[in-house]
Amino acid sequence: MKKILVIHGPNLNLLGKREPEVYGKMTLKDINARISSAAKARGATVKFTQTNSESGIVDALQGVMGWADGIILNPGAFTHYSYVIYDAVLACGVPTIEVHLSNIYKREEFRRKSLVAPGCVGQITGFGYRSYLLALSAFLDT
Amino acid sequence: MKKILVIHGPNLNLLGKREPEVYGKMTLKDINARISSAAKARGATVKFTQTNSESGIVDALQGVMGWADGIILNPGAFTHYSYVIYDAVLACGVPTIEVHLSNIYKREEFRRKSLVAPGCVGQITGFGYRSYLLALSAFLDT
Amino acid sequence: MKKILVIHGPNLNLLGKREPEVYGKMTLKDINARISSAAKARGATVKFTQTNSESGIVDALQGVMGWADGIILNPGAFTHYSYVIYDAVLACGVPTIEVHLSNIYKREEFRRKSLVAPGCVGQITGFGYRSYLLALSAFLDT
Amino acid sequence: MKKILVIHGPNLNLLGKREPEVYGKMTLKDINARISSAAKARGATVKFTQTNSESGIVDALQGVMGWADGIILNPGAFTHYSYVIYDAVLACGVPTIEVHLSNIYKREEFRRKSLVAPGCVGQITGFGYRSYLLALSAFLDT
Amino acid sequence: MKKILVIHGPNLNLLGKREPEVYGKMTLKDINARISSAAKARGATVKFTQTNSESGIVDALQGVMGWADGIILNPGAFTHYSYVIYDAVLACGVPTIEVHLSNIYKREEFRRKSLVAPGCVGQITGFGYRSYLLALSAFLDT
Amino acid sequence: MKKILVIHGPNLNLLGKREPEVYGKMTLKDINARISSAAKARGATVKFTQTNSESGIVDALQGVMGWADGIILNPGAFTHYSYVIYDAVLACGVPTIEVHLSNIYKREEFRRKSLVAPGCVGQITGFGYRSYLLALSAFLDT
Amino acid sequence: MKKILVIHGPNLNLLGKREPEVYGKMTLKDINARISSAAKARGATVKFTQTNSESGIVDALQGVMGWADGIILNPGAFTHYSYVIYDAVLACGVPTIEVHLSNIYKREEFRRKSLVAPGCVGQITGFGYRSYLLALSAFLDT
Amino acid sequence: MKKILVIHGPNLNLLGKREPEVYGKMTLKDINARISSAAKARGATVKFTQTNSESGIVDALQGVMGWADGIILNPGAFTHYSYVIYDAVLACGVPTIEVHLSNIYKREEFRRKSLVAPGCVGQITGFGYRSYLLALSAFLDT
Amino acid sequence: MKKILVIHGPNLNLLGKREPEVYGKMTLKDINARISSAAKARGATVKFTQTNSESGIVDALQGVMGWADGIILNPGAFTHYSYVIYDAVLACGVPTIEVHLSNIYKREEFRRKSLVAPGCVGQITGFGYRSYLLALSAFLDT
Amino acid sequence: MKKILVIHGPNLNLLGKREPEVYGKMTLKDINARISSAAKARGATVKFTQTNSESGIVDALQGVMGWADGIILNPGAFTHYSYVIYDAVLACGVPTIEVHLSNIYKREEFRRKSLVAPGCVGQITGFGYRSYLLALSAFLDT
Amino acid sequence: MKKILVIHGPNLNLLGKREPEVYGKMTLKDINARISSAAKARGATVKFTQTNSESGIVDALQGVMGWADGIILNPGAFTHYSYVIYDAVLACGVPTIEVHLSNIYKREEFRRKSLVAPGCVGQITGFGYRSYLLALSAFLDT
Amino acid sequence: MKKILVIHGPNLNLLGKREPEVYGKMTLKDINARISSAAKARGATVKFTQTNSESGIVDALQGVMGWADGIILNPGAFTHYSYVIYDAVLACGVPTIEVHLSNIYKREEFRRKSLVAPGCVGQITGFGYRSYLLALSAFLDT
Repeated sequence: MKKILVIHGPNLNLLGKREPEVYGKMTLKDINARISSAAKARGATVKFTQTNSESGIVDALQGVMGWADGIILNPGAFTHYSYVIYDAVLACGVPTIEVHLSNIYKREEFRRKSLVAPGCVGQITGFGYRSYLLALSAFLDT
Repeated sequence: MKKILVIHGPNLNLLGKREPEVYGKMTLKDINARISSAAKARGATVKFTQTNSESGIVDALQGVMGWADGIILNPGAFTHYSYVIYDAVLACGVPTIEVHLSNIYKREEFRRKSLVAPGCVGQITGFGYRSYLLALSAFLDT
Repeated sequence: MKKILVIHGPNLNLLGKREPEVYGKMTLKDINARISSAAKARGATVKFTQTNSESGIVDALQGVMGWADGIILNPGAFTHYSYVIYDAVLACGVPTIEVHLSNIYKREEFRRKSLVAPGCVGQITGFGYRSYLLALSAFLDT
Repeated sequence: MKKILVIHGPNLNLLGKREPEVYGKMTLKDINARISSAAKARGATVKFTQTNSESGIVDALQGVMGWADGIILNPGAFTHYSYVIYDAVLACGVPTIEVHLSNIYKREEFRRKSLVAPGCVGQITGFGYRSYLLALSAFLDT
Repeated sequence: MKKILVIHGPNLNLLGKREPEVYGKMTLKDINARISSAAKARGATVKFTQTNSESGIVDALQGVMGWADGIILNPGAFTHYSYVIYDAVLACGVPTIEVHLSNIYKREEFRRKSLVAPGCVGQITGFGYRSYLLALSAFLDT
Repeated sequence: MKKILVIHGPNLNLLGKREPEVYGKMTLKDINARISSAAKARGATVKFTQTNSESGIVDALQGVMGWADGIILNPGAFTHYSYVIYDAVLACGVPTIEVHLSNIYKREEFRRKSLVAPGCVGQITGFGYRSYLLALSAFLDT
Repeated sequence: MKKILVIHGPNLNLLGKREPEVYGKMTLKDINARISSAAKARGATVKFTQTNSESGIVDALQGVMGWADGIILNPGAFTHYSYVIYDAVLACGVPTIEVHLSNIYKREEFRRKSLVAPGCVGQITGFGYRSYLLALSAFLDT
Repeated sequence: MKKILVIHGPNLNLLGKREPEVYGKMTLKDINARISSAAKARGATVKFTQTNSESGIVDALQGVMGWADGIILNPGAFTHYSYVIYDAVLACGVPTIEVHLSNIYKREEFRRKSLVAPGCVGQITGFGYRSYLLALSAFLDT
Repeated sequence: MKKILVIHGPNLNLLGKREPEVYGKMTLKDINARISSAAKARGATVKFTQTNSESGIVDALQGVMGWADGIILNPGAFTHYSYVIYDAVLACGVPTIEVHLSNIYKREEFRRKSLVAPGCVGQITGFGYRSYLLALSAFLDT
Repeated sequence: MKKILVIHGPNLNLLGKREPEVYGKMTLKDINARISSAAKARGATVKFTQTNSESGIVDALQGVMGWADGIILNPGAFTHYSYVIYDAVLACGVPTIEVHLSNIYKREEFRRKSLVAPGCVGQITGFGYRSYLLALSAFLDT
Repeated sequence: MKKILVIHGPNLNLLGKREPEVYGKMTLKDINARISSAAKARGATVKFTQTNSESGIVDALQGVMGWADGIILNPGAFTHYSYVIYDAVLACGVPTIEVHLSNIYKREEFRRKSLVAPGCVGQITGFGYRSYLLALSAFLDT
Repeated sequence: MKKILVIHGPNLNLLGKREPEVYGKMTLKDINARISSAAKARGATVKFTQTNSESGIVDALQGVMGWADGIILNPGAFTHYSYVIYDAVLACGVPTIEVHLSNIYKREEFRRKSLVAPGCVGQITGFGYRSYLLALSAFLDT
């Protein structure tokens, strides 16, 4: 049975309340429920964590070494400047997929560059909460 | 029944023969077969086209206006300099997903910037031929 | 009797259908009709071509050497990266005017630089289909 | 009856005397005469002003609010660094066309960027004194 | 009794008429009245000048040497390219506060850099006409 | 009665001890006392927090949603690279004013650019502890 | 017996007619004759193709896989922006030498950078039609 | 007796497990033991802290004011973007030496620039765990 | 008898009062006296003008066409951004020498680039008021 | 009888010993022997010099004025920053061909730019010791 | 017995006389004496050379191939532009440590980048003459 | 009696022979004669040196410490990249004037930036051999 960790980065705890025209109306709880049931349907285990802190993400990445088969990571705005998270993705050695709710290439210039992606398996961006589900498929489907 | 067009850009006709350590061993025919059966399983129609030419991509994009519900586009190296394809994606008005076999953010500097992505729904990169299948899911799954 | 070639670049065949808030509601056929009648009124001959392809533009430029007295060229998004078209304008030796429907200086950053203009007589931008008519005047009026 | 203001920017008072290989042999007086008669022929009124001063241009732009239906502006070398003129074009609210005698895209690198053009209806460059006449047509012809 | 000079830069004479969604509906006269009464309430003298000209600002800065205890300067779009005004602020030796009606960091890229601020005591930006009142407080309150 | 949160960013807890030639001799406690009494005099409530941590700032911004009418934020050196704080300012939806003790435009090059300011109402910089008082006025005075 | 393909890129069909002060007076036919006889003298076979189209070059590169022992490629102005041709050179796997008639390092700034060269064996530039002959020597001489 | 604080930044807790070809096989515990015995041999006291968090580093720097005679700091990937740590080094006023295990100038482009070094006494990079011992010598030897 | 015009640019009227550690203690009147007597000694005529205005400099340059044999120009901070003055130097056709009191290459980064120098005979910088005398020698000595 | 000078730049004396995977196994002596016999076969004279010094190259270039009909120059790493050698190539007036053993466009970014090439007849790069022989052919063959 | 070469680059012969506030009061002779006695104490041999010439450094690097076990190199200002020295460090194959007396990251912008460091084992900067001693320890201590 | 050293940099030994349209027809010997007689007339001593080598310039600068009252330095193309010469000018402590024959601001882009000038008293450029005479005046006239 595969084990997946989902890490939601900064400000994602406000989903549903925050700028719904950009990020949609679902709350983080709603999204996690969807991911859980999709994982269950495929016989996989999934854990969730949300943090507004860079070191919270690093600790989460390090904390599942030896447990997780895969990590789904939405680094929020850290995507664009955190070399520490990039290093942590490499260091933890667990295959990681970077996801974003919105299409980051359609927004402000600074959001068009990911420092984290070069350390990941791949990147999925622009499909709302379904970006997470697609990443789950990438790990679980054959 | 949803209708999807898959556009394979330049040099993808060499898949399997070309640099397999980067692009894998499957041929384009193999990949199309996988996409077809995945579409079929979901009751969708899918068409394929491959072209080494920028205008070939533009013509393909324009040619399915009124027919396609979605386009899966791998622009190959045009991703990084073809404003004409970006314009064509916007102009054709059909929702388009950009896909790449390899994780373009792990490779040469010039491959880390997509001019086409800002015109698309989203981007999926780094999952080999399964990038196409994930894009298909993004269009067909609910 | 002066002879003028009008070259419409990529995606201009979608005029009227495509993003009318940017490009207006007239079709390419309507525009050509207006140009034709304006040319006729001044005793000039005008031919039209439209192509989505860079080499199509190059071939058109080369093809009227010895025939045309002037070329009106809307290179579309090729304006911003095609050194080959720039070279072809110089190589064909026929006086060429670059035109654009929209004011390219009001739009995305990448549209504010023309690689083709340094090879042309001049540039006219921002007047909708009337950019073509003004270019025609530039060639025909005294 | 339409009313048009023509603003000639810095050093244009030297036309005819100054670098004729770049700017031609006609004086500013000659050019104004041509514009006047072209305007007259179409039943329009045209006024002229020349100034070497940035604030002179700003004052001219502000001074015709409520009077002019259109402004033809040659900002000279201010084109390339005067954000104040850009602001004034926006602030006066009168449709403005930027013109240049020479093809600014063929000259020194610094002349290839216009800060003023994004505030204008359009830009006409490279046709000598006839750039003004084409701008006049753009305002007056239907 | 403290003496303050307020310098309004280019295009601010159009306040109320010009782009009210950016700059508000008050006229310059209204703003000056507010500043005057605020100054009066604190026993200070305030003078006003408005100019569309760079040298007008320089002359104003130089003209109050020996009289003013402080200068409130809104350089308008000169903020972004006038090294001459920067020099004049340093040269006149009177403490100067740079103010802006709008939040210049929310607007076009070019407005996000001030060449004048390094010569000033400080900068206040984004509070509409109240930017001036806050600058007045900065000079007069203890 | 208006409610204001004041957030002091990293290293501001060392005020008075740290480089007094740049930041002055007052301690953070002294400054808070001044702000408190100024708020009290206007019938407003003010709370304070200081943190050396980026997520501490994010948590503070999120924590007063529904309580605060305004936030006065000194992001310290995070001003220059924290897109996460910029996002949090937008996400919390409470009007925020960015303040700095020193004139950041007079110091090292990297301090001249604020990533946070575009998300704020405005910015006040260069007036020592009085930058906070001016921000308070901006919220409370009419 | 070695087999060599020579690919002439865009606008080279105009050789002799086009800007002879830059490109010399020989026609493409003349040049091919020289290359042919030089190849013959060394017992090698040589084929020629000319195209104004990027995909034409890609197709030519792909078309000789399995046949050619070497390719001599003059990509014309595509040299400076076509990542697709760079990819095709790598993908076809046939050793390729980039040649130019003129010394591209003596001309406009944009011509001083080759995107194609990193995929080639080497580059020969500046010797007129003899650049081709030198490339032939590089393949055939021992 | 001199007192030294050693701060190990993010991901250094994984030493020995993480990418040994880059960082070597020793664990952090091993390294600390070596540093301790070297300090002991010179009659000095040394304390250690490791943190994945930027504010953890800031707190460590502030926490030893008044105690430490010197700080040996390995900021990990924060080296390349944390202005907050640079500020904290300056603010704490304790002489600090920046160290790195690997030669940061041999690695990815982004690692070749240290924002922290300008606030330090000096920098030692590339000697594995011995970078720490050399820094210790720099503080303790005469 | 040779005729020379000396143009002093913005803020130079404050010489002696303004930042004497940078610009020295002599007033502009003192400097002009020195230049006059040096000219007189060589049998030359010299006129002076000072202006804080860009158009003042342009008018001065244009005003001596036909009279002056040479111009000594200190454009002050206009040196670094005024393309209009560069154009005016070229347009007036009178040989011009650019001078600066201070060594502009020792000061702020922005002062190290002159836009005006490419239009001048030469540049003399760093010798205080004697820069003017050296320029005079350059015109008058043989 | 034609006379050719071959200049080997810095570190080329180590050929064979130095990084053979980049530069091959032949020594400089071996290469010179090959060049000599090739020259002899064509009835030409060739001299050789090797120097690790920039001025050594300049002196060599100047020293053969009046003697050499052509120079083959491998400037080594000076290629990328020595404007003095560029000047010397122009100044000596002898036709010069720049050669490199390795394909400099395949290596570190800094090696992709030649400052010397704009002063040369042409450039040949990437053919190992045979780059020299091709340059010899360029001078001697007809 | 280990053998070490110390290379002092340009202007270091002036140590003690030259800008002592930057470089300290010791002469080069004093420094060499300290290094010698430190080497002696560890049973190592050390040689010294000083040169103002780039080729002098190259020759020194090449000259100890086969003799030295390590090189301590202070390239002075060549650090920032000499690709030739970088090549020579790689070519000679002897482990090299780059040292600097001052902290180069605290000084002018151009000194913050080392072209030589990527070819070295490591870099030690900012400890005055003790930078050399630390480098010696790095070679000799275990 | 004042003592002046004149240093002529690389390629200046070719004056008269080399590109006379840029550098004039006088030989270096002619120029030195003019400088000598001008110095003599003012009771000063002048020595000359010419070198094509960077270290030759450094040695010359260091060699006159204690003898020269001033140095006139034409660094040739070293002006644009030699930080070593910049350091040597600072280190020798003798007032130095940088001179150039041609107006370096009118030529190639790379010649418009001097790395040496920030270490000099001033710069004189564009007056042919008379640049040296003006520098002599700057040292000797009162």
